[in-house]
Amino acid sequence: MDPKVMADTLWVLVTAMLVFFMNLGFGCVEAGFQQSKNCVNILSKNFVVFACSTVAFWFIGWGLMFGDGGPWFGLKGLFMLHGADNSPATGDAYQGAYSSIAWTGVPLLAKFFFQLVFAGTAATIVSGSVGGRIKYLSFILFSFLLVGLIYPVTGHWIWGGGWLAKLGMWDFAGSTVVHSVGGWAALAGALVLGPRFGKYGPNGKINVIPGHSMSLALIGTFVLWLGWFGFNPGSTMAADPRLMAHICVTTNMAAATGVLGSTLIAWLLLKKPDLGMTLNGCLAGLVAITAPCAFVSVGSSAIIGFIAGVLVVLAVIFFDKVHVDDPVGATAVHLVNGIFGTLSVGLFAQDWVSPNTTGNGLLFGGGTKLLTAQLTGIGAVGLYTFFAALIFWLLIKHTVGIRVSLHEEIEGLDIGEHGNSAYPDFVIRKPHYTVLGLGSSVEEKAPEYAGKR
Amino acid sequence: MDPKVMADTLWVLVTAMLVFFMNLGFGCVEAGFQQSKNCVNILSKNFVVFACSTVAFWFIGWGLMFGDGGPWFGLKGLFMLHGADNSPATGDAYQGAYSSIAWTGVPLLAKFFFQLVFAGTAATIVSGSVGGRIKYLSFILFSFLLVGLIYPVTGHWIWGGGWLAKLGMWDFAGSTVVHSVGGWAALAGALVLGPRFGKYGPNGKINVIPGHSMSLALIGTFVLWLGWFGFNPGSTMAADPRLMAHICVTTNMAAATGVLGSTLIAWLLLKKPDLGMTLNGCLAGLVAITAPCAFVSVGSSAIIGFIAGVLVVLAVIFFDKVHVDDPVGATAVHLVNGIFGTLSVGLFAQDWVSPNTTGNGLLFGGGTKLLTAQLTGIGAVGLYTFFAALIFWLLIKHTVGIRVSLHEEIEGLDIGEHGNSAYPDFVIRKPHYTVLGLGSSVEEKAPEYAGKR
Amino acid sequence: MDPKVMADTLWVLVTAMLVFFMNLGFGCVEAGFQQSKNCVNILSKNFVVFACSTVAFWFIGWGLMFGDGGPWFGLKGLFMLHGADNSPATGDAYQGAYSSIAWTGVPLLAKFFFQLVFAGTAATIVSGSVGGRIKYLSFILFSFLLVGLIYPVTGHWIWGGGWLAKLGMWDFAGSTVVHSVGGWAALAGALVLGPRFGKYGPNGKINVIPGHSMSLALIGTFVLWLGWFGFNPGSTMAADPRLMAHICVTTNMAAATGVLGSTLIAWLLLKKPDLGMTLNGCLAGLVAITAPCAFVSVGSSAIIGFIAGVLVVLAVIFFDKVHVDDPVGATAVHLVNGIFGTLSVGLFAQDWVSPNTTGNGLLFGGGTKLLTAQLTGIGAVGLYTFFAALIFWLLIKHTVGIRVSLHEEIEGLDIGEHGNSAYPDFVIRKPHYTVLGLGSSVEEKAPEYAGKR
Repeated sequence: MDPKVMADTLWVLVTAMLVFFMNLGFGCVEAGFQQSKNCVNILSKNFVVFACSTVAFWFIGWGLMFGDGGPWFGLKGLFMLHGADNSPATGDAYQGAYSSIAWTGVPLLAKFFFQLVFAGTAATIVSGSVGGRIKYLSFILFSFLLVGLIYPVTGHWIWGGGWLAKLGMWDFAGSTVVHSVGGWAALAGALVLGPRFGKYGPNGKINVIPGHSMSLALIGTFVLWLGWFGFNPGSTMAADPRLMAHICVTTNMAAATGVLGSTLIAWLLLKKPDLGMTLNGCLAGLVAITAPCAFVSVGSSAIIGFIAGVLVVLAVIFFDKVHVDDPVGATAVHLVNGIFGTLSVGLFAQDWVSPNTTGNGLLFGGGTKLLTAQLTGIGAVGLYTFFAALIFWLLIKHTVGIRVSLHEEIEGLDIGEHGNSAYPDFVIRKPHYTVLGLGSSVEEKAPEYAGKR
Repeated sequence: MDPKVMADTLWVLVTAMLVFFMNLGFGCVEAGFQQSKNCVNILSKNFVVFACSTVAFWFIGWGLMFGDGGPWFGLKGLFMLHGADNSPATGDAYQGAYSSIAWTGVPLLAKFFFQLVFAGTAATIVSGSVGGRIKYLSFILFSFLLVGLIYPVTGHWIWGGGWLAKLGMWDFAGSTVVHSVGGWAALAGALVLGPRFGKYGPNGKINVIPGHSMSLALIGTFVLWLGWFGFNPGSTMAADPRLMAHICVTTNMAAATGVLGSTLIAWLLLKKPDLGMTLNGCLAGLVAITAPCAFVSVGSSAIIGFIAGVLVVLAVIFFDKVHVDDPVGATAVHLVNGIFGTLSVGLFAQDWVSPNTTGNGLLFGGGTKLLTAQLTGIGAVGLYTFFAALIFWLLIKHTVGIRVSLHEEIEGLDIGEHGNSAYPDFVIRKPHYTVLGLGSSVEEKAPEYAGKR
Repeated sequence: MDPKVMADTLWVLVTAMLVFFMNLGFGCVEAGFQQSKNCVNILSKNFVVFACSTVAFWFIGWGLMFGDGGPWFGLKGLFMLHGADNSPATGDAYQGAYSSIAWTGVPLLAKFFFQLVFAGTAATIVSGSVGGRIKYLSFILFSFLLVGLIYPVTGHWIWGGGWLAKLGMWDFAGSTVVHSVGGWAALAGALVLGPRFGKYGPNGKINVIPGHSMSLALIGTFVLWLGWFGFNPGSTMAADPRLMAHICVTTNMAAATGVLGSTLIAWLLLKKPDLGMTLNGCLAGLVAITAPCAFVSVGSSAIIGFIAGVLVVLAVIFFDKVHVDDPVGATAVHLVNGIFGTLSVGLFAQDWVSPNTTGNGLLFGGGTKLLTAQLTGIGAVGLYTFFAALIFWLLIKHTVGIRVSLHEEIEGLDIGEHGNSAYPDFVIRKPHYTVLGLGSSVEEKAPEYAGKR
């Protein structure tokens, strides 16, 4: 057996496992940042979503994304990986239905496993933003649709040999393909759902609904940071020593400066180093470096991460101002910094890092060609994903329904949706609406607080 | 140095680390599914058990399991790996005391480390089922006995070149060797201990004793899912690209369909998608695919996982009906699905997946020969393990004692056994017996609720 | 590409990721062992510290530690890895600024990433010991100083080709370089800060301030145990099959016997098997085996771990007796056992384990030469680190200040430092000072309980 195939497959599988583990990270971050009365529901969504993704991506998503075909989506070997394939043969030696991913010399199922965990990431991003009010079944249905039909299409454009790849757009590990796709779908969901009861009071007052466990949130963020060492360095899909090591360092550096950037700006703007902002700053840096990690220097990665850390704090404040209720800040993290990261390729790329790929970005004398391709990709993917997601969300809303009853929402989704309670041994504070000072008048005041339900 | 030995060893060690990490998974699942008043005790058991396993497997277990010898147990190199061994030499070039495992070309201590973490898994399965009433010391003693003297014997039969291996029984990664052995030992323990106080009321009423943290349970399950990517793909014990990738995908697929199967059946039977059932469905799928993961197609793995997900829900209900009190459903997960998974090899195996091993199973035209061997193995291992465990449990019961006092059990084992409290800063609800409506009459009503203590 | 470079780099990067993950382990252990009112603060410190370490080690630490230069610190390629380097060339073929680490054939950034996560470990050790009373900003400043200026200097002495390396001192994975350096810095911090309010009452009474979540502590310890499989076996920095496997087993064995040793001694001395002691026993075994893991037999590792488990219990009791308030026992774990582990090389080393390195230790007929070198290293590193740390702590104390106000300390640092609360949905018991029986008189009694603030 060729030692290179052995090492490449080892690397692809181990890093895929790390990316799989990000499901735990998302689960913990999203649960920690939301209320205990919805905890079982959030955990359930974050757990079941990867099961849905597995089935949907196996059944149709993989084929749509990597099947040979036109510029828009795959046409060959669509279902259940049934297409011909002689992997780990690469390049001209490759014969099969999935030639766009024949640049990596690993077995077909290694490619599938790696891409599957990426698809799952896009789906799990959504669950946080729609938390606290979505019906469990509706979320499950959307997850199937997202991973089966939305994600693979734009994925094909960029990674499946589609029109954006041909245009010269570069997204190494998926700031756009994964994160901003998840972010756009999350934004559409949050808009269709409307804000949680009590989030925006009468007179435009913005209420803070604090999460129930910062320990969970911290566990989740560290697990995500670890998982990103699979996400980015693994996207080499080959045991390329120099590049693997380079990406480990750029990824880690951007996470670190994201932490410092968001902590600093939160300290300045909010007067205290808010831990939620610190954690989201880390994730923002990681999302932003995902596209450029293999194209920029370590120094540039430090700058990109720091900017991302600042951006995420501003974005969280902005989305709250415009009354988009995203309980965990997923749009601020994944959408805003997915866009910024993709853009940063056009600004910071340097040819020497990965020769014969991006060339130089604007700041290194490469002109605006790359930047334009990046902008085109950002716009096209955003338009398609947002509207496709919107249509599916509305379809679900007008068939099985999308939002739980006001009573269930106030009581918590754990009882209504699952018949469980996350922490039955512990004495829980009186529900949030008494904190708002609504007391027993909650039912009559409900309309004012319920937003555009 | 031979690059294959390097890659093989890398794979074996990294996957062994993932299997080691399953100790955390078991700890979190078992603690999450049980009451906070017993949390320190559960965590302690799940922590100390791997220390016991390490010492017991090193001292005697490894030799009994893999030492050359007869059909029943190893006879050479019994203690502390002192046998001759020229690993990583394989096949005819191998000279040493452990020839049954000389098919993998890695150093002796890599083999030992990998097998040790498997032995530890069997032991940690037990701790959940005996939770909430067993003496800490008694559990520790049983762990030494299980890993030192019970597990290695049946392990020898199947993986150590013993009589079941010669008979043509196949258990790739241990549905029987590890999981149903752990399950049988757990069942014997649960029977000897009797149910927890209050679990089964007068008139046969089955009381639900909810776990104290679904967050912990979710963390545990995801960690186990991750760990299984070590458990199953690592059992190649070689960096075989195609097979490693195949097993990653079959393992993941069965977990996913296990999740969907158990969620669906729980939704139908219990009217709500209970998170506990969803999590146990995942574990059931993983246990079931453990034996066949290298022998069945991806499509078959989807079916096996789904059936396992349904089975575990039915089994949990069944064990409750017959008043076997297993606080975490370990028997439903590991015993029932360990058996089912081992059987499924005889049904779903296809020769092309791993040529020259199982051949085809019943559903693919292979006849009943394989199925019969599987059934023989299931029966023989079950008989030996259940009765050996029963004898040891009874021995412990009649020497150091096995169950804490009723007072200690009602108060919680954390105070009585450890002098600790898991969450001293938090206000805990009144103990379970007031929930049962027993009020201050708990002492007088105790006999009725105490079952067959 | 050379398959050895591929396998070596794979190993270095994957094990570095595991060591990175130890940040989560430290975060969970330290948070779990402290009070919920300080939880956000502890988590924040443990999260931000790796971001600080990343920037500091990149900016200057790496160069000071591994840059070519004199016996005391590096002089070449000091800043931001700008020195010449033709890695993965090794030995005589190496040309560059970092020749002391040219024995491993991996790319420069792989070396940097691996060493960075080690530097981060030293820094995160400190945070536990200074918990519950240090200002957030002061801790951040110290972290930059420790990783940028203190840790790399002694690191240079031992791993960077400095005077202790030349003297024949051996510290395979950092019992001294990492753990006792962290421990000395922690001790200096704890002394400068003084004990937490209420820890030591009038008349020398020692109050127990229990941690708020044993579940968190257990998660953390298992994550650290896992991470140590990166820490020690990864320190081969090469995919050396026999040595990697050997170190996995010695590391795991010492952890296991550490667990058993500390559990046993706690059971004997404290009458109950305290879980906190069990967990710290595991960490003690791991710290102790860190230096000798590649130099001693499996049997010796079992003895070393057991002794470490006993030592940590005695050390915790000792530090409490002398009123050094270390809320998590970090000095008992990392300092005491870092010293013991380094010493144990001089006692237990056997030439055959890693030929041409240590030779035999005292117990295996090697005489006292090695032991003397180890003792010299322990003493020199301890003196330098303790006093350098002390100076920096005092510098911080007299500029930005080091300790929060008494009011903030009693209320908890989460509100005062971060404006957050870790568990806002849960009802928390009345603060610790009411438990002490101080009632409303806390303000007037404060001086008596405040120790040498």
